[in-house]
Amino acid sequence: MSVSIAYLGPPGTYSEAATLAYVRFFKRKTDTEPLLCAYPSIAQTLQSVAQGQAHLAVVPVENSIEGSVTITLDMLWQLDTLQIQQALVLPIRHALLSRASSLEAIQTVYSHPQALAQCQGWLEKFLPSAQLVPANSTTEGLQYLDQDDRLGVITSQRAAQLYNLPILASAINDYPDNYTRFWVLGKQLSLGGTHTSLAFSTPANVPGALVKPLQVFASRAINLSRIESRPTKRSLGEYLFFIDFEADSSQESVKSALSELASHTEILKIFGSYGVLAIDSSTVLEA
Amino acid sequence: MSVSIAYLGPPGTYSEAATLAYVRFFKRKTDTEPLLCAYPSIAQTLQSVAQGQAHLAVVPVENSIEGSVTITLDMLWQLDTLQIQQALVLPIRHALLSRASSLEAIQTVYSHPQALAQCQGWLEKFLPSAQLVPANSTTEGLQYLDQDDRLGVITSQRAAQLYNLPILASAINDYPDNYTRFWVLGKQLSLGGTHTSLAFSTPANVPGALVKPLQVFASRAINLSRIESRPTKRSLGEYLFFIDFEADSSQESVKSALSELASHTEILKIFGSYGVLAIDSSTVLEA
Repeated sequence: MSVSIAYLGPPGTYSEAATLAYVRFFKRKTDTEPLLCAYPSIAQTLQSVAQGQAHLAVVPVENSIEGSVTITLDMLWQLDTLQIQQALVLPIRHALLSRASSLEAIQTVYSHPQALAQCQGWLEKFLPSAQLVPANSTTEGLQYLDQDDRLGVITSQRAAQLYNLPILASAINDYPDNYTRFWVLGKQLSLGGTHTSLAFSTPANVPGALVKPLQVFASRAINLSRIESRPTKRSLGEYLFFIDFEADSSQESVKSALSELASHTEILKIFGSYGVLAIDSSTVLEA
Repeated sequence: MSVSIAYLGPPGTYSEAATLAYVRFFKRKTDTEPLLCAYPSIAQTLQSVAQGQAHLAVVPVENSIEGSVTITLDMLWQLDTLQIQQALVLPIRHALLSRASSLEAIQTVYSHPQALAQCQGWLEKFLPSAQLVPANSTTEGLQYLDQDDRLGVITSQRAAQLYNLPILASAINDYPDNYTRFWVLGKQLSLGGTHTSLAFSTPANVPGALVKPLQVFASRAINLSRIESRPTKRSLGEYLFFIDFEADSSQESVKSALSELASHTEILKIFGSYGVLAIDSSTVLEA
């Protein structure tokens, strides 16, 4: 039976680009061809694995400009059965696709709210009077382009290639250092690697409740690569903390850190250790 | 000259409800009538104060379910001139407005993505096949209701009252403990109060870079009510940290904490000390 991989579709999204890069990596490693299934939301992508419909899920976790993809963190905490198998880092280069002959003709721009936000400066400069319409994905608006040449869609160059649509402007993101990190999640135990992720809640309203957990890592010179808080959804002011650090959970120092951490936290969930695959932007277009 | 207050409009949004509650508080305190101006985005609301078009701005900071309003934090860091004058905590009760005779007739639901997310469970249970359309505000979709009785809009009960539209279902948010916190921002120095907010960057890639800043507060038994990380937008993995704590910056222990904090951080910005006004949900409808 082939391995099935769920991802946030449809084809042409950045999630698909990350998934295709992972598929090439997976095939080199396992010499088997996985099956891809697109899902319409991050929640459904993750549930498909939790419920046994797919083996692996590829979902975005964090963008270098916009920050965390909070639904991914919230679902990971709630589902409680998924482990991180691999991280993927994808360079993001937005393009404006349109049938318009020039920028002046554009009256409306569709895209995912994160993509609109990432091109905010460019839009204010070149399309100050265009109406910005949020969509469920960076590809949703593409279906309207053929009917109306006053529309534009902010999406990937790969979508232009895939749907044979003209690029009116490219590399329009305000910050050139724009990357999105994805996680490949599955029910099997993680394989180990350079990074480990976990999350915990702390006893409420105790001064310094977060200091002790962080000290556990600092005292062992374990570098935290990320810390993110999320509401517990119980009451305003109560948080969960998501932490990534640069070490494998099989190392002795990490084992002792994790057992000490358990004594300073209320609920502690460890999402596994994994490697990070940096995706070359040139291979995205070949996909 | 009257004081002008900018807020995220249009009328009927939760931001307007918070602003109207603040106006009542402001009038009791100053015995003057402020002028209200609605702006179409959080960025424009804050810029209006930074550029001197308005005296104060009311913007959402955090929701107890969805977490931070990241554009507010990013703009506050960038603009560098705004101080927090007051915090407001508003209870959120979503309703479904529609001209449909029953839920079965609803095919499409419009709302702001945060409101759609906050009613996700209810929507899956009662409107599993409805198409969910993200909008720029909780009121944007209301203009279509009179033309099409297959549409619904998730918004406040106040919007139903204001625009004379029927409520098809009320209190549809998945978590009853749903609150949004707002900040009132201005260029003048903060007035002081029970809470203080600040943000800082840390030297990159130093293990424990966040431990020392947090220890500064823990060692003085100052309770942090919130910590949030945001990307610096320079490169993936570099963060700013936003902290709220429960003390006034004129207290001696806080003064010494802040001067010690400056030595453990790269850039430190203090947004002021302020009081928190809890808004009663019953007064929102009277507004």
